[in-house]
Parts: sequence; structure tokens; C-alpha cells
Amino acid sequence: MTETAAENRRIVLARRPDASLQHGDLRMERVPLPTIDDGELLLRTLWLSLDPYMRSRMNDAPSYAEPVAIDAVMVGATVSRVIASKHAAHAVGDLVLAASGWQDYAVSDGTGLTRLDTDMPRPSLALGAMGMPGFTAFVGMLDIGQPKVGETVLVSAATGAVGSIAGQIAKLRGARVVGIAGGDEKCRYAVEQLHFDACVDHQQHDFAERLAAACPSGVDVFFENVGGAVWEAALPLLNDHARIALSGLIANYNRAAPSDGPDQTAQWLRILLTRRVSLRGFIIFEHYKTRHEAFVEQMSGWLREQRIVVVEDVIEGLEHAPAGLMGLLRGDNLGKLVVRVAD
Amino acid sequence: MTETAAENRRIVLARRPDASLQHGDLRMERVPLPTIDDGELLLRTLWLSLDPYMRSRMNDAPSYAEPVAIDAVMVGATVSRVIASKHAAHAVGDLVLAASGWQDYAVSDGTGLTRLDTDMPRPSLALGAMGMPGFTAFVGMLDIGQPKVGETVLVSAATGAVGSIAGQIAKLRGARVVGIAGGDEKCRYAVEQLHFDACVDHQQHDFAERLAAACPSGVDVFFENVGGAVWEAALPLLNDHARIALSGLIANYNRAAPSDGPDQTAQWLRILLTRRVSLRGFIIFEHYKTRHEAFVEQMSGWLREQRIVVVEDVIEGLEHAPAGLMGLLRGDNLGKLVVRVAD
Repeated sequence: MTETAAENRRIVLARRPDASLQHGDLRMERVPLPTIDDGELLLRTLWLSLDPYMRSRMNDAPSYAEPVAIDAVMVGATVSRVIASKHAAHAVGDLVLAASGWQDYAVSDGTGLTRLDTDMPRPSLALGAMGMPGFTAFVGMLDIGQPKVGETVLVSAATGAVGSIAGQIAKLRGARVVGIAGGDEKCRYAVEQLHFDACVDHQQHDFAERLAAACPSGVDVFFENVGGAVWEAALPLLNDHARIALSGLIANYNRAAPSDGPDQTAQWLRILLTRRVSLRGFIIFEHYKTRHEAFVEQMSGWLREQRIVVVEDVIEGLEHAPAGLMGLLRGDNLGKLVVRVAD
Repeated sequence: MTETAAENRRIVLARRPDASLQHGDLRMERVPLPTIDDGELLLRTLWLSLDPYMRSRMNDAPSYAEPVAIDAVMVGATVSRVIASKHAAHAVGDLVLAASGWQDYAVSDGTGLTRLDTDMPRPSLALGAMGMPGFTAFVGMLDIGQPKVGETVLVSAATGAVGSIAGQIAKLRGARVVGIAGGDEKCRYAVEQLHFDACVDHQQHDFAERLAAACPSGVDVFFENVGGAVWEAALPLLNDHARIALSGLIANYNRAAPSDGPDQTAQWLRILLTRRVSLRGFIIFEHYKTRHEAFVEQMSGWLREQRIVVVEDVIEGLEHAPAGLMGLLRGDNLGKLVVRVAD
């Protein structure tokens, strides 16, 4: 990590990506270290979270969140240390969950900060299993998927930040869990380390047949993070009264135009109708008020009792964040992708 | 109606339709009047219901119900009169809701019959507003759609058996109701007779623009009976947290192959995800146990108080049932389509 104490490195959106995110779409700038006024504090980024939603925020399309402006710092959740404070509620040395984005330092007026235990052994968990991805898995699996003992639960992006937790929660509920992941290594990981009952590699040419074979009793809950070919292979396997928790569509985030035909819409709708499927799209920020407290209590317990395995993929250095996000969108990561920005 | 007392006319499935239902796909047969054994009764069909689901039952594709066998009598709900009885529970003259199918007479062992008031002023209501279509509208609108005062509710096939009731129920709940129907006459009917707030003709070349203009505050509940171009125009109008009650897909029933591309799947999924939409496919037969009693009580009251307008389209004579179903699949009917088989 090359930096001097007096400057702030920040990565900004240089231009909106055409389709796939490219290196020139992001740009690193070096600016003077910001100063703080009364009521403000200066945060040092320790950990930056990389998440699929970041790709959507680069588009200028209507969505649930504002797009990142051109030349603005890329958004992102961080674990940060307070290194200067003119704010009554925060002291130097405090560890906080913040939204500093892709930069070494950020000024905050305290809004939206969550204090973390200063001696937290593994602060990056606040970005993963104990953070937004873990909460997404919790709400999507328990509130929408509602798996029952013995049911078959299908989880796409099975070794990703959300999928790895979602599948393990379903296992804790007594379901049979089948993962979908890209590549043999990830699939082995899902079965051997995360204790999924099976995992199917979507890069295989006969993926749909393999998936059907891995789900001999059909699919009762589909936790969908991907879309595209994964959706196509999963839909025909749904049982009557299946529940779909639509959590993400990473296969589409880098895509500019609709796929070539034929149009499959009628086929999906027919399945959703005749099998009496419930589908619910959800965005996790809406669920903090009602469910976050229950999540923190439950997930803390599971982690303490080591009933949930946490998988982290660590990138060293802010300067490698752009390549990290590109890899995430290609599916290169295994587990929650985080950037170690400073110690 | 040409028949002699000693014969039973019945309409059977001659062959499975290729795509659109054709005249040769159904065949009328004349067979001797059936006789009854102990424990059986002979039913005279008075009214035969024609419903979109009948087209699906002609296909040999996996669905929630068995396909009609080749050379078997077409299935269908009927209002029938008991004209001979060797069954303790049913006397000659009784009026019953039955599933005699497309024929003048049927033998029954009493299974599945529902007794109707013998002096019911309008027995065909048991096939429409008080029957399966009315119950479908009730469950889909109240349990799945859950419209709130001031919300915008969109109902496709707005003047059909289900849609006409569904829209009126939403009005009774204080929603603003926009219908979609085929043709100017139906749209006028929806607004003038059913008191919908607006109705848009899907046969207009600028249907999607007109629909958007009719829903200036977007769509909170979409009661979908159609699919195809109707689905395509409605989806972009959905508000955050919209609910879709997927009740039918009549636009697809006559279709053999997927539509030409491009494939719109990714676009629909994106809308369902980012707007946090709930979609639920439902088939009404599953809801009788839990909701039918409440429906009968509520709908009887609404009809008694004339708060629901009932629209019926009557075809005279069993021999015209095939043309009637073809018309239904084209959208020719206005309201619940029934065949008067005998008085």
C-alpha cells in the first residue's frame, strides 16, 4: 500500500460502464487529507466491503437507490477507526461501521455510524456474516423462503457472501441444501466446508441436467442471487407451493441489452401459475427496523457456537478494489469479498 | 336445441389442439341415455360453465390437473337437475352444482355435488359470481392483492368472469381500479356498468402508453389473468412493494411455442427485485377448505345489497359450446360465459 500520511486516496466513478465493468470506468485520485469542523470526525478506513450491488449503482437507470455521480467516490460499507474527533459521541480510537466508500479517509458528522467493539477480534465480520450480506441471507431464507425440515432448498452463488450464509441457515432449519456455484473448487468448498448436501457447477455444459439430478425431490425454496442460466435451470425444478427469495441478479448486472430470443416469459409465468409459486423480491435496507435486532442476536449465537462457517476472500490494498469488483462480477471470489485498506 | 328424449348428446375431445383450438378438436356424439344403479342419480344439465382453464386441460402437458383423455367428455362445472334418483341424499327435482361436463345428462354417485336452492332465481350464478370465478376473484384480490384505500389496482380481462368481480371487490375496498380489456365496447362497459375508474383497450397500437397514462400513480396491485402483451405493459408500471395475483394466462393458452425474442426474462426479474414485488400464482381449488365459507357469506351479502354487478354472456344450446370456448379464448365474451343447455 503506497500512501503518504498527508493525502487521501479515493476511487471515483470516471464514466458509466457500457456493459462489463472496465478498468477505465474507475479512477484513483490523490487529494489532501480532509480536515474536520466542530461536530465532525475523521475516519480511517480499515476494511472496505465489495458487493454486487455496487455495479448497479454505476448505472444511470431508475432503481431503488440513486446512481453514483460521475467523479464521485464509489459508495461502500467500511469498518473504520476514528482518528480525529470534534464530535461528542465518538472518541479517537473508536471502531465503527461506516459508509465511507472507496477511500482511505472520510469525514463524518456521525450520521449512520454504528459503533463496534473496539477489541472485536475480526472486525471485517461486520461487513459479512454479521453485516448486510448475513442479514440478507437471514431475512431471505427465514422470512421469505421459510424452509421446513426435509424440504429441498436451492441456493445460487452458493459460496458467495450471501449464499454461503443462506445455505447454512437452511441446514440449521433441517432442510436438504443444494448449492449452485461456478467451478469445481467452489462446489467442493460448499459441500466439504459449508456442509451443503450437494453443489452443482453452472459452468458445466450439462448444468441443467446435473441440477435436476441433484434435486430428485424438486425444489421447495429457491434463494436466487444470479438470474440468467441459473434461473432457467432452476425454474422447471420448482415444486408446488415453492417460494422464491429473489435477492440478486448478478448475472445481469454487467449486461446491457436483453438476451437473444426466444422470449421465455410465458414459460416462467406458466410455471409460477400452475405450481402456485410465491416469489418475492427484496432489498435488505427495508428490513433493519423490524428484523435486525433478531438477526444480531441469532447470528451472534450461531457464530459463537460455530454453527455457521464464515468464508472471507481478502484483497490487500485499496488500489486493488476495482479489480476485486470485476472479479466479483465474474464470480472469482470465494466467500465475502473485503479489501484490507489499513491495519 | 335438437335432441330426442332417449339420447344423450356429449362433446368429447377428438384430438389435442396444435395451438389455437379448432372445430375438429372437439366432436359431438349421441349415445343412449344412461341408466342408474342403486346409489346413483341421473342429472340433467341446465347450465354449463365455459372457462379458460378448459383449454389447458386439452394439452398433454404436466399441470396441476390431469389432461382430458382423447375421446373423453370435456370437463366442466354444471348446474344440473336431478331427474332420477336411487340415492338416499338426493331427490328428483333437486338442483345441484355438479361437474357433469359438456353433455345433456350425467350419472353421479353423489360425490362432489353441492345442493342449490331449488327456487334459486338465477341458478347460473352458481357458476359465476357465487361460483369458482367469483371465489377466484375474492381470494386473489383480498388474500393476495390486499388493496388499500387509495391504491391503484390493475385488473386484466376486466370484463371477464373473474376480472369483473375482482375489480369490483377492489372498488369496495376503496382502491382506484383500472381495467384492461379487448375493445372499446368492453372498456366502456367496465367504466359505465362496473364503475371501474378507467379501462384501457389492449387492442390499441399505443396500448402501453395509454395504460401508463391511466395509472399516473403507478400500480400497487396487479390482478393478472392474461400474460403476453398485457404483462409487458403492466410490469414497468409497478410501484415498490406491488403485489401480483397471478390468476391466469389466457393469452398463452392457445400458444404452442415461445414468442420471438429478445428474451425479456432479465428485465422482468430486475423489476421484481428492485421494486420488491411479491408475486403469487394461485389455483382456486386449494382455497375452498380455508376461505370458501367466508366467500359465500361475503359475496351473498354483496349480491343481495347489489354492491356487485354480475355480467353474464349466455350461449343457447350445448351444440354451440365449442364455438363459445373458442370465442372465450379470443376474448369475445363480455362477463361470465355460460351455456344454457336446458330450462
